[in-house]
Amino acid sequence: MTAIDRLQSTFARIATLDEAAAMLGWDAAAMMPPGGAQARGEQMATLAGLSHELLTAPALADDLAAATSPADPWAAQNLALMREAHTRATALPRDLVEASARAGSACETIWRTARAASDFAAVRPALAEVFNLARQSAEILGAALGLSPYDALMAQYQRGIRAADVAPLFADYTLFLQKALPLAEEIQNRRSHESLPPGPYAVDLQQALCARLSAAAGLNFASARLDRSAHPFCGGTPTDIRITTRYDESDPLSAITGVLHETGHGLYEQNLPAAWRRQPVGQAAGMAVHESQSLIIEMQAVRADEFLAHLAPVLAKAFHKPITQGALAHRLRHVARSFIRVEADELTYPAHVLLRFRLEQALLSGALPVADLPEAWNEGFHALLGITPPDDAQGCLQDIHWYDGAIGYFPSYTLGAMAAAQLFAAARKALPALGAHLAAGDLSPLVSWLAQHVHSQASSLGFNELLLATTGEKLNPAAFQAHLESRYLTQ
Amino acid sequence: MTAIDRLQSTFARIATLDEAAAMLGWDAAAMMPPGGAQARGEQMATLAGLSHELLTAPALADDLAAATSPADPWAAQNLALMREAHTRATALPRDLVEASARAGSACETIWRTARAASDFAAVRPALAEVFNLARQSAEILGAALGLSPYDALMAQYQRGIRAADVAPLFADYTLFLQKALPLAEEIQNRRSHESLPPGPYAVDLQQALCARLSAAAGLNFASARLDRSAHPFCGGTPTDIRITTRYDESDPLSAITGVLHETGHGLYEQNLPAAWRRQPVGQAAGMAVHESQSLIIEMQAVRADEFLAHLAPVLAKAFHKPITQGALAHRLRHVARSFIRVEADELTYPAHVLLRFRLEQALLSGALPVADLPEAWNEGFHALLGITPPDDAQGCLQDIHWYDGAIGYFPSYTLGAMAAAQLFAAARKALPALGAHLAAGDLSPLVSWLAQHVHSQASSLGFNELLLATTGEKLNPAAFQAHLESRYLTQ
Repeated sequence: MTAIDRLQSTFARIATLDEAAAMLGWDAAAMMPPGGAQARGEQMATLAGLSHELLTAPALADDLAAATSPADPWAAQNLALMREAHTRATALPRDLVEASARAGSACETIWRTARAASDFAAVRPALAEVFNLARQSAEILGAALGLSPYDALMAQYQRGIRAADVAPLFADYTLFLQKALPLAEEIQNRRSHESLPPGPYAVDLQQALCARLSAAAGLNFASARLDRSAHPFCGGTPTDIRITTRYDESDPLSAITGVLHETGHGLYEQNLPAAWRRQPVGQAAGMAVHESQSLIIEMQAVRADEFLAHLAPVLAKAFHKPITQGALAHRLRHVARSFIRVEADELTYPAHVLLRFRLEQALLSGALPVADLPEAWNEGFHALLGITPPDDAQGCLQDIHWYDGAIGYFPSYTLGAMAAAQLFAAARKALPALGAHLAAGDLSPLVSWLAQHVHSQASSLGFNELLLATTGEKLNPAAFQAHLESRYLTQ
Repeated sequence: MTAIDRLQSTFARIATLDEAAAMLGWDAAAMMPPGGAQARGEQMATLAGLSHELLTAPALADDLAAATSPADPWAAQNLALMREAHTRATALPRDLVEASARAGSACETIWRTARAASDFAAVRPALAEVFNLARQSAEILGAALGLSPYDALMAQYQRGIRAADVAPLFADYTLFLQKALPLAEEIQNRRSHESLPPGPYAVDLQQALCARLSAAAGLNFASARLDRSAHPFCGGTPTDIRITTRYDESDPLSAITGVLHETGHGLYEQNLPAAWRRQPVGQAAGMAVHESQSLIIEMQAVRADEFLAHLAPVLAKAFHKPITQGALAHRLRHVARSFIRVEADELTYPAHVLLRFRLEQALLSGALPVADLPEAWNEGFHALLGITPPDDAQGCLQDIHWYDGAIGYFPSYTLGAMAAAQLFAAARKALPALGAHLAAGDLSPLVSWLAQHVHSQASSLGFNELLLATTGEKLNPAAFQAHLESRYLTQ
């Protein structure tokens, strides 16, 4: 066995452990009775600990040092990703890793109460400690990886794009939004307001329809399940996708769009290249690319006029109610200034992310003291959307991310939305009949195109490399803005 | 940290990995889509491999050698069980372990086809190889543990009783059955035959009733679930029990008695001592003791006259059908000579086990060549039950156990049935109002007694030690025979 063989075998073992953890994570959210929670936490910790031990074993370091870069570009990228994973796992002192885990866990617990009481002061010291430790980690990781501290954190979630690349795109969006939002509101007010028929929409009908739409979108249910959980997600492994949703009897579109969003994630995983299964290069390319694949289904394809024209009679038949395309469009493309990110429409959603992107960099560098966060949040929010959160629960306390130690994650949402629009525009060009396919409810040409150009590329390319290869240019928010203009700013 | 501390920590880690595997095993049977099977097999193999590596690490052997037996009897027994587990894991050469795993897996695959075609010759060479390798393993394990080869295998499933203890009890049962079976049949023929009302019995009603009866029997559903699978079982972990069943629209009693059987297993796990969780001494005492806990619920308590009197109106109300105690008794206590073990009644079931117990010892020692198995099976079966299997599918091909390499398991079923009767007789003595409790549908006094005398003892005592401590004597089949006499042989 060569060093490369041994490395591939060990990384496959680590990935197999991670798969076990992914299944247990799904079970915890979708199946587990409450009494199982403590033991499940211990099971997950044991799996993570063994995974970490395998990744940091001295023999693996020796093999990484001995391995020479293979000629095959995928194999070479695989080795590079192994080195990066090993560097990340070994760069940080154990004390710092454990202190960070403890601080994140403690802060998250306090945050749950603090958010409910809208009491930022209660969680402030814990959050300061989270950022304090994250700063130390980010500096060490950045030095080891040749990245700025913030980029070192951001790259945990999405490789191949840096804060310096993101900042001008987001600044541009700020300017766009200042003009676009009032105009979209004005146009929206002038449009007719068709409503969905009142509920109830029976949950079993919703469930059957969601499964049918997901399968029609291409998810292979011989290797997937659809279940319920408090928060929708896509978990599992490439050959055993577990998507979840929640159902609201008064509103079927929440589950339907949620399931189609998760279906986009699931399709990405199902179409990853089997030949590189369980190798670093065979994994999805990152959170932003993943989000682009859920949003291209949910936002670009499903909310397109053509698909809504198909969907309206499907829903009408399933629920035996007069559901029109106009009502779907009104419900699914409603723009509103709101305080909560996860409830935002696609036009204002980036504003929520822009604010967080700016603030988390300032918090990480120390330029913004944690104590000043609520004020900075509220001012920044007002500048972007013209409204001020009435309390911190609807402001800087709303998201778990920072309180749980996830810093550098937020940009992925908007990078994904922008990439989805750019990819969809490229798909429209490459597939002249795409509109007709959507009108027939047929997503398969789009999904095949994505499988070929995105899914099957796995982690062989970073974020901007992938867009360049697929669309001819790096991330360019023009496609996203053109999409928004056509959907919201056209009379 | 002392050697004992380190050992307890490592064994807890191993048990935590085994818990993860238990959850994934449940998922594979109850939830997993077919496409997930291959990856799941690899996940399970990786967990088993890591568990084995932890158990066979040189540092653990050093700690076992250095540890001095603690004064506390549970801690001392825990150390003894650690030593036994380590001996089992290290005694066998790696080649032999791998060859056995391959042989069992290959033989099981061939067996599935051979059973369907009732073609013993097709699987004969593979089965011969399984027994050949099992013989080698049993000799090595027996030498390492100071047991006969067969006892070394049997002790994998149940410690604390040997083939030499079992043989006279089973011989005694053979004599008992020769008289009892014709008499039971004669009495049964003279009894009135009340039938259950015809179905369908709606599956959702069955499911709700099964969950209610299981909860009423004491299973804590804050730490348990009830789901469906092709073969009923009890899986999961002590704080996260997963029981499964299957439903037959024409017969609600199959699911009900199945769920109450699995509930008995689940109660045992839920009542194991939390203080010794994840330590060898804190685990259930073995398969025979486990089976005694399922059978004491399913066979002793639930099929008792008093409980059936309670159950009949409960079923009648749940299904809106005229279900009488007489019909339940007729359906649940029907004696019949039959070829298939898993369908046998409690009087003839031991005959199926006696035959396998005798034959597997002869196959293991080599006294019975594998080629002669079908003839020996059919002759032995006829001697016990007076009927001859029409083909090998209904004879020596019916059970997966041997073909999968599980040798020494079968006695546990009947040891469990005998122990259940002995424990139930002791409970009747200790709880004078037990009959009245059963008549009120209240199993909690029985379950509390079992929790105190059996469940909470975990693996601190072997099979016969446990019975001695709880009932005043080692396994004595008199209670089982008295139970059968009272239920089947009384006019």
